Amino acid sequence: MVILGIDPGYATVGFGVVDYAYGKFTPIRFGAITTPAGMAFPARLEIIYGDLCQVLDKTPPAAVSVEQLFFTNNKTTGIDVAQARGVILLAAQQRGVPVYEYTPMQVKQSVVGYGLAEKQQVMEMTRRLLGLEKVPRPDDTADALALAICHAHCAGSLLAKYR
Amino acid sequence: MVILGIDPGYATVGFGVVDYAYGKFTPIRFGAITTPAGMAFPARLEIIYGDLCQVLDKTPPAAVSVEQLFFTNNKTTGIDVAQARGVILLAAQQRGVPVYEYTPMQVKQSVVGYGLAEKQQVMEMTRRLLGLEKVPRPDDTADALALAICHAHCAGSLLAKYR
Repeated sequence: MVILGIDPGYATVGFGVVDYAYGKFTPIRFGAITTPAGMAFPARLEIIYGDLCQVLDKTPPAAVSVEQLFFTNNKTTGIDVAQARGVILLAAQQRGVPVYEYTPMQVKQSVVGYGLAEKQQVMEMTRRLLGLEKVPRPDDTADALALAICHAHCAGSLLAKYR
Repeated sequence: MVILGIDPGYATVGFGVVDYAYGKFTPIRFGAITTPAGMAFPARLEIIYGDLCQVLDKTPPAAVSVEQLFFTNNKTTGIDVAQARGVILLAAQQRGVPVYEYTPMQVKQSVVGYGLAEKQQVMEMTRRLLGLEKVPRPDDTADALALAICHAHCAGSLLAKYR
């Protein structure tokens, strides 16, 4: 099963496409979509949408796994991340790919086996599970791959299906 | 100048297309895009995007005017409104239509002439300026028309251009 993990954002969107079969992961493609800080926000959304559509079309996934959004203190940033996440969901929906969402704690639990694991532990375990030499950079890419792994481990449960 | 005002949301998106020429408004088309509460969220975004693209293509506007988002106490609703707003901005951007955003206070100031005006005053003035018999329903539609009027009155200023 091909799974696309996405770490939503508007400056950087991490993505990771992995294949999961017989309990084993094969990384297919991973990286980050970046948009320039000085660009008008709607134009940044267009870049994110366009690049993500390419990722979706190159290796059509059976599922998209995204991080559930929470609002922290920086509400303005939160609004813009949510707006970017909207176009991400749209791109998946337009291709009929179901979207699942997970909390950071669910990702830690399913990747490391411990919901309060440190970020470094999650990254190291992601590297190992995917058989990579180094932890993928930037962090957004590693986070996206962890989300894909999380969905592979949780796919039996329907609880995470986007309501 | 044709202006499309949009009141963002995910259950209801108000829209209003008006022509503004020589200080006079002509309503062209207005209404609301609605999505069913029980539908999965990504599918709701797809409806909003598709319907809004139709509105944009029927009478291509010179500008889109949307309400600036703020977060209130209901953060979860806020996230979903922001996600819907993202696909709205995308639809405008893909057609090369510039997006302008205004605060509720700017809308009141420019429609009624008083930034702390009551909602009913804004609606009544919107009705009069557009030469309508009744205040358009639902409120989201009236709000969208007020946003279009606001942009017509403020278009001389570049301050509102989406950063």
